[in-house]
Amino acid sequence: MAVDSFKGSLGTREAGEAVAAGVRAADPAAEVVVVPVADGGEGTTACLADAWGASLRRRTTTDALGRPCTAEWALSPDGATAVVELASASGLPGVADIPARPREATTRGTGALLVDALDAGAQEVVLCLGGSATTDGGAGLLTALGGRLLDDAGDDLPPGGGALARLARVDLAGLHPRARAVRWRLACDVTNPLLGPRGAAAVYGPQKGSGPADVAALDGALARLAQALREATGASVADLPGCGAAGGAPACLVAVCGARLEPGAPLVLGEAGLPRLLARGADLVLTGEGSCDGQSLQGKVVDGVAAAVRAEPACGAAPVVVLAGRVDVPPAELAAAGVDAAFSIARGAAPLADLERDAAELLADLAERVTRLVGRSAPAGRPSRA
Amino acid sequence: MAVDSFKGSLGTREAGEAVAAGVRAADPAAEVVVVPVADGGEGTTACLADAWGASLRRRTTTDALGRPCTAEWALSPDGATAVVELASASGLPGVADIPARPREATTRGTGALLVDALDAGAQEVVLCLGGSATTDGGAGLLTALGGRLLDDAGDDLPPGGGALARLARVDLAGLHPRARAVRWRLACDVTNPLLGPRGAAAVYGPQKGSGPADVAALDGALARLAQALREATGASVADLPGCGAAGGAPACLVAVCGARLEPGAPLVLGEAGLPRLLARGADLVLTGEGSCDGQSLQGKVVDGVAAAVRAEPACGAAPVVVLAGRVDVPPAELAAAGVDAAFSIARGAAPLADLERDAAELLADLAERVTRLVGRSAPAGRPSRA
Repeated sequence: MAVDSFKGSLGTREAGEAVAAGVRAADPAAEVVVVPVADGGEGTTACLADAWGASLRRRTTTDALGRPCTAEWALSPDGATAVVELASASGLPGVADIPARPREATTRGTGALLVDALDAGAQEVVLCLGGSATTDGGAGLLTALGGRLLDDAGDDLPPGGGALARLARVDLAGLHPRARAVRWRLACDVTNPLLGPRGAAAVYGPQKGSGPADVAALDGALARLAQALREATGASVADLPGCGAAGGAPACLVAVCGARLEPGAPLVLGEAGLPRLLARGADLVLTGEGSCDGQSLQGKVVDGVAAAVRAEPACGAAPVVVLAGRVDVPPAELAAAGVDAAFSIARGAAPLADLERDAAELLADLAERVTRLVGRSAPAGRPSRA
Repeated sequence: MAVDSFKGSLGTREAGEAVAAGVRAADPAAEVVVVPVADGGEGTTACLADAWGASLRRRTTTDALGRPCTAEWALSPDGATAVVELASASGLPGVADIPARPREATTRGTGALLVDALDAGAQEVVLCLGGSATTDGGAGLLTALGGRLLDDAGDDLPPGGGALARLARVDLAGLHPRARAVRWRLACDVTNPLLGPRGAAAVYGPQKGSGPADVAALDGALARLAQALREATGASVADLPGCGAAGGAPACLVAVCGARLEPGAPLVLGEAGLPRLLARGADLVLTGEGSCDGQSLQGKVVDGVAAAVRAEPACGAAPVVVLAGRVDVPPAELAAAGVDAAFSIARGAAPLADLERDAAELLADLAERVTRLVGRSAPAGRPSRA
């Protein structure tokens, strides 16, 4: 059972447990394993904390406009891996109560969480992009990690992407000693470049309150950042696909710390331990999400689960079935993605509110029906591992 | 594919073909057989004509109140079996345009179709009860077949159940020469007796326009008929379960012609050739109906199909899956009835009108998903027969 959250109804753990209950109703002897999963978006920190059996760590930091706020991150029990969502401290909801100031918004508050992760000894830091209120090219992250962004006079720039227009050089002398030692993995599902008409400012700026003048100013400022990073590190981030995600947040981490951009779902599924569990074999893999549509098969949880199953020889014959609130993909497309079938939890005509209200019960019921069918279809006598 | 009609949306043939299209989309090499099915209710004549590859036979006869009408029946191509619905000539819809006259309503118009069937040489006549406007104990059927219902003066009674209060004796001297030679099979899904508080007049009379006085009069008249039939034939129909169906229509045919009452779905599935086809083996049996609820598992098509599959050794491993507009039965109850799973055609929240409008497309899509899942679950390399 590796089921994404049903937005507005069930978290990934609740959804997984509902499905597990259905499977057990169909086959009380089944060995059922529930894996919390997420796609690198909102809820990924909580998902991995759950998958790891770790507690969320909360601390006071600053939001995108510099006001105190509480944000959370998680560390795996062995201390090796940390997960941080950019949106926790630097997200749009945190600054939705005041007028947007897109040129001043900074990722510095998230940077404080990253410092915590380094100080805790993490050897790998997963940073989930998406949902940020910022367009600062990750400048706030870098300054929190000890980098300095200096103007012509050698003074530190104020926070925010707008100030980068005056960036003269990047000083990495005071960088956190572990900043270049850890493995940075940035969960990112877009391919936008940092600059230009498909860049961070032009495409994502408007939803963060940028008008045309802001977009032009921020695009120019990010270009200045890219040039200064190149001068400081030799690395070019201007043309890197995905570097335009989250207001260009990857730019500094990629150039300075060698961070890698990775599709979110496979990254999170890997951290949640799905491949290791699949290597033990399975007779049925149930996954799902609120809405299974064309997007689901492009780097989302459902697609990631199917790919992981198909890549695991021990699961060669295991059907992969999607249980969803809504199914809106032709069966042939599902099959091409390695999904054998998808079913809606709906048992007939029903308004959305009813499906949301009864999601757990309907999900368990559907899982029971699917398990009974697969059990009948499978060769008799084989122990069931779902 | 043995799918009942989706009332208001699809006939059994259309539903079966939609399901077949979905199966072929999932597995172009599948050997697909569509069997039109019905439960002995409305549409059974058309269903069997289709299953037999026979044309419907139409003729002018009289409705329940004696007015000319057109009614239909069917004869199997080998001439051996006829199917007649009592409702075709003697149904409620045919007399809905005028005030009900429950004491006068007669099955005589249907009797004319039965005579046709006998004259055509049928050796077996399937009469589907249900939907009739009559409460005449089958007196009209008997008179059409040549029986006479006489009063004290030796005169023929007028049509309708009310007149039976004056019935003195039944004269079978002029009975159609083949009336007792053919095998009469009455499709009947109720257990009500002819008489009393659970009888034909008391239970079904009100829906045919009977007030309390009519119910009392008709119940008494049917008691008189039962007594006269016993005197004429030695057979007692007063306590026979099911004899109260369709205004007591079975009474005369049971007493005079030895007709048998049978549950409708298995009778029709048998006539449609389902058991013979299942004996060839199957890897998947898809059935369905508009609404799969508790009733579906009590002598309806879905239940009948599952029972036929489970009774056929050649189908030992074949999953039976119900495809329905609405699924309202717990999975465990489905399993107890031999059904492995039931799914709704709904792919998410949707109003009933949308499901009805798109029923064929949704049914094909669901069949494709189920077939892909069963195909994945089944041992590889086995030829697929659905």
